[in-house]
Amino acid sequence: MALLQSFIQVHPDSHFPIQNLPYGIFKPQPTSSPRPGVAIGDFVLDLSEISSAGLFNGPLLNNSDCFQQPNLNKFVSLGRPAWKEALGDYTDFFSSLHHTKNCGLIFRGPQTPVLENWYHLPVAYHGRASSVVVSGTDIVRPRGQAHPAGKPSPYFGPSLKLDFELEMATIVGPGNELGKPVDINNAEDHIFGLVLLNDWSARDIQAWEYVPLGPFLGKNFATSISPWIVTLDALEPFACEAPKQDPPPLPYLAEKVSKNYDLSLEVHIKPVDHKDSSVVTRSNLKHLYWTLTQQLAHHTINGCNLRPGDVLGTGTISGPEPEARGCLLELTWNGQNSLSLNGLDRKFLEDGDEVILTGYAKGDGYTIGFGTCSGKIVPAAP
Amino acid sequence: MALLQSFIQVHPDSHFPIQNLPYGIFKPQPTSSPRPGVAIGDFVLDLSEISSAGLFNGPLLNNSDCFQQPNLNKFVSLGRPAWKEALGDYTDFFSSLHHTKNCGLIFRGPQTPVLENWYHLPVAYHGRASSVVVSGTDIVRPRGQAHPAGKPSPYFGPSLKLDFELEMATIVGPGNELGKPVDINNAEDHIFGLVLLNDWSARDIQAWEYVPLGPFLGKNFATSISPWIVTLDALEPFACEAPKQDPPPLPYLAEKVSKNYDLSLEVHIKPVDHKDSSVVTRSNLKHLYWTLTQQLAHHTINGCNLRPGDVLGTGTISGPEPEARGCLLELTWNGQNSLSLNGLDRKFLEDGDEVILTGYAKGDGYTIGFGTCSGKIVPAAP
Repeated sequence: MALLQSFIQVHPDSHFPIQNLPYGIFKPQPTSSPRPGVAIGDFVLDLSEISSAGLFNGPLLNNSDCFQQPNLNKFVSLGRPAWKEALGDYTDFFSSLHHTKNCGLIFRGPQTPVLENWYHLPVAYHGRASSVVVSGTDIVRPRGQAHPAGKPSPYFGPSLKLDFELEMATIVGPGNELGKPVDINNAEDHIFGLVLLNDWSARDIQAWEYVPLGPFLGKNFATSISPWIVTLDALEPFACEAPKQDPPPLPYLAEKVSKNYDLSLEVHIKPVDHKDSSVVTRSNLKHLYWTLTQQLAHHTINGCNLRPGDVLGTGTISGPEPEARGCLLELTWNGQNSLSLNGLDRKFLEDGDEVILTGYAKGDGYTIGFGTCSGKIVPAAP
Repeated sequence: MALLQSFIQVHPDSHFPIQNLPYGIFKPQPTSSPRPGVAIGDFVLDLSEISSAGLFNGPLLNNSDCFQQPNLNKFVSLGRPAWKEALGDYTDFFSSLHHTKNCGLIFRGPQTPVLENWYHLPVAYHGRASSVVVSGTDIVRPRGQAHPAGKPSPYFGPSLKLDFELEMATIVGPGNELGKPVDINNAEDHIFGLVLLNDWSARDIQAWEYVPLGPFLGKNFATSISPWIVTLDALEPFACEAPKQDPPPLPYLAEKVSKNYDLSLEVHIKPVDHKDSSVVTRSNLKHLYWTLTQQLAHHTINGCNLRPGDVLGTGTISGPEPEARGCLLELTWNGQNSLSLNGLDRKFLEDGDEVILTGYAKGDGYTIGFGTCSGKIVPAAP
């Protein structure tokens, strides 16, 4: 892979070398119409121009206007998955054992931090698609009900426990028909690629509302994703074995090759008026217990249909070490401890904090990366 | 209202008299392209023909091709909400006290059948939009994991506890911007109308998977809705006071007028090869504890954005009487008892069973109704 040469000069640390050509939607000028593109180094290749110039001469793309669109839906319909301005459904899994255990300890105590079903199936819930936003979008601090322990009744106000969650997400390529599950050993063919995902969470709202039907307003005010979809082909050099699963999964989840990716993940926080950001988390995609393909196959086993552009979040990716915890809930143990950001204390996010996720893998002289997924907290509505 | 006269003869029992002109998408012939229409009695008024003939002479519709479309999205964008072939997000509430109490007794026992948060906020979860299907679509029995009490480990197979849930749903009209909540006293302006909704549920899959993040594969294999959206204007003559709420809701949920609708709801089951169906449930929309407007305002209070065409299910609408229970889980008390369908025993749904929801209100010499929301169970994938 490292021998591929590009006519564009790309720095070895760039996330988008010739080995990683991620799809996205961009505007060449602020006033231009949005159009499909591919990132290379610091440049974006304008697929609409390539197409207009007749440079796609294969049978599928030759006479197609699929790149003369403000999104990639038409490109998708040719049998390739893609980025959509209007995303489909959004599902969020819960596939890191370390995150699951820490949350169980914090919310339910030491008896059964990990519930029995967790080891048998990739637990998940449906998220809100309308509030999935692209990196760089400001995040308005949500308001809602909370009910602190020991108080006689709930109150209403801005969340006091605003958090990030370090996740990645599968962007679904070809979907499946309602009633027709995807076989576990074909699941990879339904994955177009991956993005970084920040599942913003209001822990006080979440704690009060989530029984018995799961998270709702504690999560659905915003979910940020990185703008470039990195294909599994680009990540293949960094594939590694997934953790051994015990008990062994039921046959519909047992895969011939059980694969994770060795991909470094970081979370940085940059307080308002600070020049520098601080790294608060160093984790890795390889810590997932349930693989991306197991998540996808499980999602469809009951006949549920996936559609191109659907987003399947991995859940917070925490590693075994304390510094690899993927959210402030875990890092500060629900606000019992503080983090230091260049001398500033943090238990949860403050207005003006910018949270920046990044992810990359280092090859021999090149980097495959995801760019960043960022969002700045702005004050709650009055 | 009863004095309005139509040039079309409409039977007094018809659900679609001149007082109820619901929007939908139809095909005049099986081979025709789908187009917008309005139901009147047994007829459908073809809005594309009316429009082509130049009969819409108002400023908004005069030169618009919004009715020359296979869906109503363009009509929506004129500021009116509408039916969309591709629905947006789907949310399901849990707003009937009787249903909540019965489920709590069945799943968690008599200690706290209704959890404390339920009386303070309209509990809800996100459902799956891709598998929302129109009335008449067959429902493939889902397969999945279940773990019956007393067994050492879970097994995989077709659901043995397939159920319906009698619900209605708000179809959202104008949406709201991300970060800009809808005021409780303006919430009605964001409701285009209502449909019947059957939230098909696999109770064995649901019971095993739902802790701690809520329902997922136990629900997302299919959700049926009736094809015609009945406007709130048509239902206004049947408005009634909503149940008194104690404790009183927080100010953001306190509305000047707290309104339900007196709308009879029935569930019929027609076993395969039977000529007749049996009524198994007689309930009423007026039993909702949390109103439709409270549901909508709550959904947006954290800044979550609704979009035209979003579906907000009410949750199962059970009344206080045993025969008003809105699902088999409650009617047979999780399979402990049987229902008799013309002599046939039923604990949960069998292959070939057709489930038919209907809803109507009787005016003075006319009926406002929703038609039906039906679905037939077909065998699981092999």
